[in-house]
Amino acid sequence: MSSPEELGALAARLGYTLDPAQVKDMVEAVAAAEPAAAALRELPVRPETADPFRGEAWLRGPVPGPGPCSGAPAAATHEAGLDGFAGLSLDGAAGLRATAERLRGTASAGERVAAALAGLERVHEKLNCTIRFLHERATAQAAGSDRRGAPRLLEGVPFAVKDVIDVEGVPTTAASRTRADAPPAAASASVVARLEAHGAIPVSKDATTEFAVGGPHPPLTGACRNPWDPERWAGGSSTGTAAAVASGAVPFGLGTDVGGSVRLPAAWCGLTGLKPTAGAIPRTGVVPLSWTTETVGPLARDARTVALLFALLRGPDGVDPRMPDLPLRPPTDLRGLRIALPGGYLTELCDGAVRAGVAQLADVLVDAGAEIVPGEIPSAERALPIGYEVVFTEAAALHRIDAARWADYDPVTVRRISQGITTPASDYLRALQFRAELQAELAAVFAGADLVVVPTTPATAPRLPDCTVTVDGEQYPLYAAQSRATMLGNLTGAPGLAVPTGFAPDGCPVSALLLAPPHGEATALRAAQLFQDRTDHHLRTPPISA
Amino acid sequence: MSSPEELGALAARLGYTLDPAQVKDMVEAVAAAEPAAAALRELPVRPETADPFRGEAWLRGPVPGPGPCSGAPAAATHEAGLDGFAGLSLDGAAGLRATAERLRGTASAGERVAAALAGLERVHEKLNCTIRFLHERATAQAAGSDRRGAPRLLEGVPFAVKDVIDVEGVPTTAASRTRADAPPAAASASVVARLEAHGAIPVSKDATTEFAVGGPHPPLTGACRNPWDPERWAGGSSTGTAAAVASGAVPFGLGTDVGGSVRLPAAWCGLTGLKPTAGAIPRTGVVPLSWTTETVGPLARDARTVALLFALLRGPDGVDPRMPDLPLRPPTDLRGLRIALPGGYLTELCDGAVRAGVAQLADVLVDAGAEIVPGEIPSAERALPIGYEVVFTEAAALHRIDAARWADYDPVTVRRISQGITTPASDYLRALQFRAELQAELAAVFAGADLVVVPTTPATAPRLPDCTVTVDGEQYPLYAAQSRATMLGNLTGAPGLAVPTGFAPDGCPVSALLLAPPHGEATALRAAQLFQDRTDHHLRTPPISA
Repeated sequence: MSSPEELGALAARLGYTLDPAQVKDMVEAVAAAEPAAAALRELPVRPETADPFRGEAWLRGPVPGPGPCSGAPAAATHEAGLDGFAGLSLDGAAGLRATAERLRGTASAGERVAAALAGLERVHEKLNCTIRFLHERATAQAAGSDRRGAPRLLEGVPFAVKDVIDVEGVPTTAASRTRADAPPAAASASVVARLEAHGAIPVSKDATTEFAVGGPHPPLTGACRNPWDPERWAGGSSTGTAAAVASGAVPFGLGTDVGGSVRLPAAWCGLTGLKPTAGAIPRTGVVPLSWTTETVGPLARDARTVALLFALLRGPDGVDPRMPDLPLRPPTDLRGLRIALPGGYLTELCDGAVRAGVAQLADVLVDAGAEIVPGEIPSAERALPIGYEVVFTEAAALHRIDAARWADYDPVTVRRISQGITTPASDYLRALQFRAELQAELAAVFAGADLVVVPTTPATAPRLPDCTVTVDGEQYPLYAAQSRATMLGNLTGAPGLAVPTGFAPDGCPVSALLLAPPHGEATALRAAQLFQDRTDHHLRTPPISA
Repeated sequence: MSSPEELGALAARLGYTLDPAQVKDMVEAVAAAEPAAAALRELPVRPETADPFRGEAWLRGPVPGPGPCSGAPAAATHEAGLDGFAGLSLDGAAGLRATAERLRGTASAGERVAAALAGLERVHEKLNCTIRFLHERATAQAAGSDRRGAPRLLEGVPFAVKDVIDVEGVPTTAASRTRADAPPAAASASVVARLEAHGAIPVSKDATTEFAVGGPHPPLTGACRNPWDPERWAGGSSTGTAAAVASGAVPFGLGTDVGGSVRLPAAWCGLTGLKPTAGAIPRTGVVPLSWTTETVGPLARDARTVALLFALLRGPDGVDPRMPDLPLRPPTDLRGLRIALPGGYLTELCDGAVRAGVAQLADVLVDAGAEIVPGEIPSAERALPIGYEVVFTEAAALHRIDAARWADYDPVTVRRISQGITTPASDYLRALQFRAELQAELAAVFAGADLVVVPTTPATAPRLPDCTVTVDGEQYPLYAAQSRATMLGNLTGAPGLAVPTGFAPDGCPVSALLLAPPHGEATALRAAQLFQDRTDHHLRTPPISA
């Protein structure tokens, strides 16, 4: 127990002005409450059912409420027809079907899967992008696909899976030495199950930072290199997934995003990557890190593929407690689209090539009938540290479950999440209040704008081994720079789409981020499709290709 | 900043096993994060928009989202017809209308209001139950009522309002010296506005414990006495409201409940009092204490009046962010009603007269066709301290806004809520996880039972001045005993109805608590109506009457 002086000093630091008698009262109250608090700390809790929001879910509707609390991922019951998602494509539901047909191609599933695995193995030798190849499982699935009559939407299409997402029968390591001997997952994550139900076949569990939060050099695997320049990092934390997709070994992959972890590697590998609205895609079966900020998201070369995947992945699974059953916002007509290009913190530390990419994207949209409207986000600068406060506080709370094994964690994991061990609840709650205040600021911008366009991240991919980034010739540490824009979406829950906008003089890709209001993914995806119809940045092939 | 040793010791106490190097990393991470955390503490926040759940609301539907964040109570737009609430009454919608007609009576509004105010003044002299009489405002409203043609449902019916609930034009003191000079409220709370829209007239702002959490002797007003025995306390925190209604001066009142604050004074004053499902009745315009656990609730002599009030108060107001728009559960037929009577912690510290009351209520329901089914809540014992952990942590976070004025708070307020100043976020989040676990336990009981019946509180009203309670001749401190059963409902959000079940040998009322699953108020209200049709405990008049 802390001394009265320590508790009094802590209270004062937190903003409470207490006299000595009040400090004495507080010390007594804390001491009296401690046995119950200590007993509660000892009660077991499982990560997969630890979201404190579950307590709201019981009060808010019949599904999802408490129940067997099995944590089992939902069955593949996502039967939404593509017609309901027509708004996601410039070409309507027919466009989504055409994308699926293109992804299916003409080769057999067996050929597709074998080629993907062979390509992955080749690039893995140079990039270290894969934690586990799913040879046996994928080959068996492909054989099943080839025996079917009518092909399903993504019949036989191979895809990559970040190794924090469960695939039935396969261990999920989260790139942690503490999970090197993890048992096979009992069921696939809802997102994997949904794609499998449409015939797609996972072929790899991909490199990531440990628990999606550790450093670029996880002790279990080492760093994953960037196919555009193997002296650089592929970006985190959906590291290997981005590298695998960019190399062309697989047409798409599934990542997760807590502070930019889909959008940053997408940006640095020249891909289109979506962090959806919080609650739009189920997280069941995904190793959790932060309940408030985390989403699953697809990565692919082009926005059309991302749109199709979003259509197949979106909607409640009956298990994830944070999923409202809400319709998509109808897309805004791109003629007359209002785009805000906020400056300040979001552009001030930003390489010229990145700014040029944002400008090119805006120009193309304006050419197509969009207009630039004013829109600033004055609190953007606060979003990064406060977002991290929420992330690390929740991550520390989650990892308390395993806190006796932190000696085996990546030291960077511990360094980052240990910031959250001692967060006072009053600060955490204040941060969640700030989240709502920041949402109000975004909502005010979105009252006058359909999309907000900012740099996804200030610079091209970080150089290994130290992962500094270079902005107009100056070097900056990774964590001070990378998530300046992306954390806005994590903290508020607003969706964001990273779109490749070309290449810097160093030959590496740059990216713009299209931010939309909640459930406004359709407008962002259509704007990106229009841009990609008129440019070819997303079609370029990196030096290291499958 | 705390020393490395202190932080390391704190981490160890919280369950984190860190080696010295990790402690050093943590200290550095905390220090690096502190400037942003400190800046956030300095950012202003207003209590009425401080619910951290607002950050979910933006993601979960168009209403309520962030907007002007005015905190202004909703207009009285609650137009639900009584037919939609027929299930709340044994006699259907006609029964609700008959109750309203009985409440309206035959006297003019002017006569009703004048009699209520005169009666209140008489009992206030003996009980100290009123903080402010609304003579002018109520008289003007009554004159308006008497000028109307067709009377509204509660035309001219006077009611009492706990002084944490805003009434337009009247200061809300929350029984705090720090709010003795509060400005008049700019608008009425949604609950007051809804009743006024049906013609009811608030006549008093009632005694409470300071901020609904302080001690029985708030420095601003002193203690409020019990109409059944003025040597006893009326109970808290809806103290004066219960005393006023029990005295007969007004037919009903509005209280709030964070750990039993409607149900305990209802029990001790011989009233029927409802803590509804969390999120069923709007809290807009109510001085907040704890976002997770707090509800507004009506108090009256009989369950029929409570049912009518619940029908008029229920439903989203478009401002309170925690209100799902859900239908009531249909009531269970009382023939075949399954009642669980859990024991253990919920009955072990319990006076014989209280147990007898519970047994009588169960007997009457069994006579009417109910059956007793098994159902235990093994975690009930944990619910009290963990509920307090949530309440005090949220209360401390809220009252940080005013933390420079705590010297003027009731010392009991400070003593209680200061327990929450130093709660680590990991403990707070664990407590919210426990909330979901406790819900799962209740859900399992409700899978086999329609209602759970327990003692509302273990003993009759506490004796002033020290507020010990007496259980079978033994004395116990107030806070160790009073909320053993009620906190279950606050922590889980499940509704609970306190029902008078008779009198102890000391002449004071005893009470049983009917717990129902979320949005299952109808079954509890109907069971209470049936019991009250066959008994007359709720009709007895206390020695101190208006």
